Amino acid sequence: MLMLATEVMLGFMGEFDLIETFFKRPARHATLGVGDDCALLAVAPGQQLAISSDMLVEGRHFLSTVNPRHLGHKALAVNLSDLAACGAKPKAFMLALSLPQVDPHWLSEFSQGLWALADAHDIDLIGGDTTRGPLNICITVLGEVSATQALLRSGAQVGDDIYVSGHLGDARLALEVFRGSMKVPEAVFEHARWRMEQPTPRVALGLALRGIAHAAADISDGLLGDLGHVLKASKVGAVIDTQQVASTLACTSDPQTPIQLTLASQLALTLSGGDDYELVFTASPDQREAVVSASQASQTKLTRIGRVTASPDLVLRAADGQVLPHTFASFDHFKSP
Amino acid sequence: MLMLATEVMLGFMGEFDLIETFFKRPARHATLGVGDDCALLAVAPGQQLAISSDMLVEGRHFLSTVNPRHLGHKALAVNLSDLAACGAKPKAFMLALSLPQVDPHWLSEFSQGLWALADAHDIDLIGGDTTRGPLNICITVLGEVSATQALLRSGAQVGDDIYVSGHLGDARLALEVFRGSMKVPEAVFEHARWRMEQPTPRVALGLALRGIAHAAADISDGLLGDLGHVLKASKVGAVIDTQQVASTLACTSDPQTPIQLTLASQLALTLSGGDDYELVFTASPDQREAVVSASQASQTKLTRIGRVTASPDLVLRAADGQVLPHTFASFDHFKSP
Repeated sequence: MLMLATEVMLGFMGEFDLIETFFKRPARHATLGVGDDCALLAVAPGQQLAISSDMLVEGRHFLSTVNPRHLGHKALAVNLSDLAACGAKPKAFMLALSLPQVDPHWLSEFSQGLWALADAHDIDLIGGDTTRGPLNICITVLGEVSATQALLRSGAQVGDDIYVSGHLGDARLALEVFRGSMKVPEAVFEHARWRMEQPTPRVALGLALRGIAHAAADISDGLLGDLGHVLKASKVGAVIDTQQVASTLACTSDPQTPIQLTLASQLALTLSGGDDYELVFTASPDQREAVVSASQASQTKLTRIGRVTASPDLVLRAADGQVLPHTFASFDHFKSP
Repeated sequence: MLMLATEVMLGFMGEFDLIETFFKRPARHATLGVGDDCALLAVAPGQQLAISSDMLVEGRHFLSTVNPRHLGHKALAVNLSDLAACGAKPKAFMLALSLPQVDPHWLSEFSQGLWALADAHDIDLIGGDTTRGPLNICITVLGEVSATQALLRSGAQVGDDIYVSGHLGDARLALEVFRGSMKVPEAVFEHARWRMEQPTPRVALGLALRGIAHAAADISDGLLGDLGHVLKASKVGAVIDTQQVASTLACTSDPQTPIQLTLASQLALTLSGGDDYELVFTASPDQREAVVSASQASQTKLTRIGRVTASPDLVLRAADGQVLPHTFASFDHFKSP
């Protein structure tokens, strides 16, 4: 596209060289990958295309000092997490990249982080765009799921169990340490930082939950917020066992490096931490065995944290049965504390 | 996604309100649109999905003073132009938007420009992302085309005619006037600016050329550059009649407001202007009648500008048959003059 201002040459390579060097590999699944006006992708008979886009901005979604290899991983991981939440099988992705300058080392590291996760999920980079500008990474992922098996936010039913996958609160813990508002042992911080920078999208779990879960969402803005979207879309409420939620915090349960945190801190981190990329889902109590099987098949820890109710409220219960106030707002990009 | 820095509230609405207010309408074609983790889209039997992404950055692809309604149009138009170049029928699009602040007037105007063009092509906005950051608009369009009918860059054959659609050079003319390097009458500038800010994606032409054109690309980086990609992908060359190319310049042929430009200026604008969003395509001379029919069916002016050759060079011929040097480089985002 036409450039609006006369600019100084910033790097040693042009846009096409950049794509050739770092982002072009033969497509294995797509009919046509990087290098034409469009990519072409076949969708299997009986399957629908599941699509999601996430945009990552420097200073907002990652620190300028982040390891670019980790950033490449994370930029794709947060998108794959959306496919996981729909029970879709990842097929391909598009990458649009705005770069302040062409830094071959940065690009090499970034692309290696990206390729490693793409390879782990056997998906192709099929197209995109590169331009100069403030650092911005926009990925669109494409997956397949049958219309009848897609996990939606709107399917939760009264009486359903509510589960979360893996561990909650790690990313927020790392952020609070970065901010200086919490102190933890070095090993705990490194683990939390690794989880913040290199989250594991729960794709295998999402696939295993097809036909079992009634509703699902990924936890990107904090459990309360994302579960809230499921409840609103399903026109139901929930009672949550906060002790079970707090138990998902990795750093308090790790026998290697146990740390003491107040219950309030544990609840803040796990209920409204954000950036977890775990799944929250609901399933009928009749399906408890099937849920255990899905957990085993996907090698993903699950914790049952509550129950769907007809009342539209989201009620937080303490261990003693008392109702807790929930003043932990969901993270929202335009309404910050 | 988790926010990294404590930020001051910038607007009156949160991310979800913003989406609800400006970017959510019932999906007409998609199974599931804005509001879940993924959008779901059915692809018709026998069709493949055509996908393209374009990222627009303030100061690079548009001026900060641009009318936001025009910007909404253009952000979608440049993406639809890629579908046109593949002969794909537009179905839906994703919008990822990074905004420095929430300005309801700007968002209302931007979304109206976007909706107007989306409505003209009967396509749904099915999902995306909004975040705070430097102004950046990333759109991914999704269309349908059968694998056998898709227009690729790689299909040009020796002996093919080469055509361009519509008018070339308008956007570059407007840019040069903005830069102060050219002066034209007000009416000429207004027309050129309109073409720069509100290009017409040649979707109808792309559809009409299926089964007729051997190869196609859209002209975003200048005719020489984009035709060059077609020739390289097809492993062929071309001889171009520069007088025919220059004749596509609207401002010199308009009887209402004729202006005089040197031939060198005409050639610079039309051969390497950029931001045209016209199509360049090749077709066998046997198909000349079919090409005329496609032009009429799509109500799109076409100009035959040359011929595909076995020699890999791109030769520019003057009216007198002389070979012209072509020192007009293709616009390239990372290798600017």
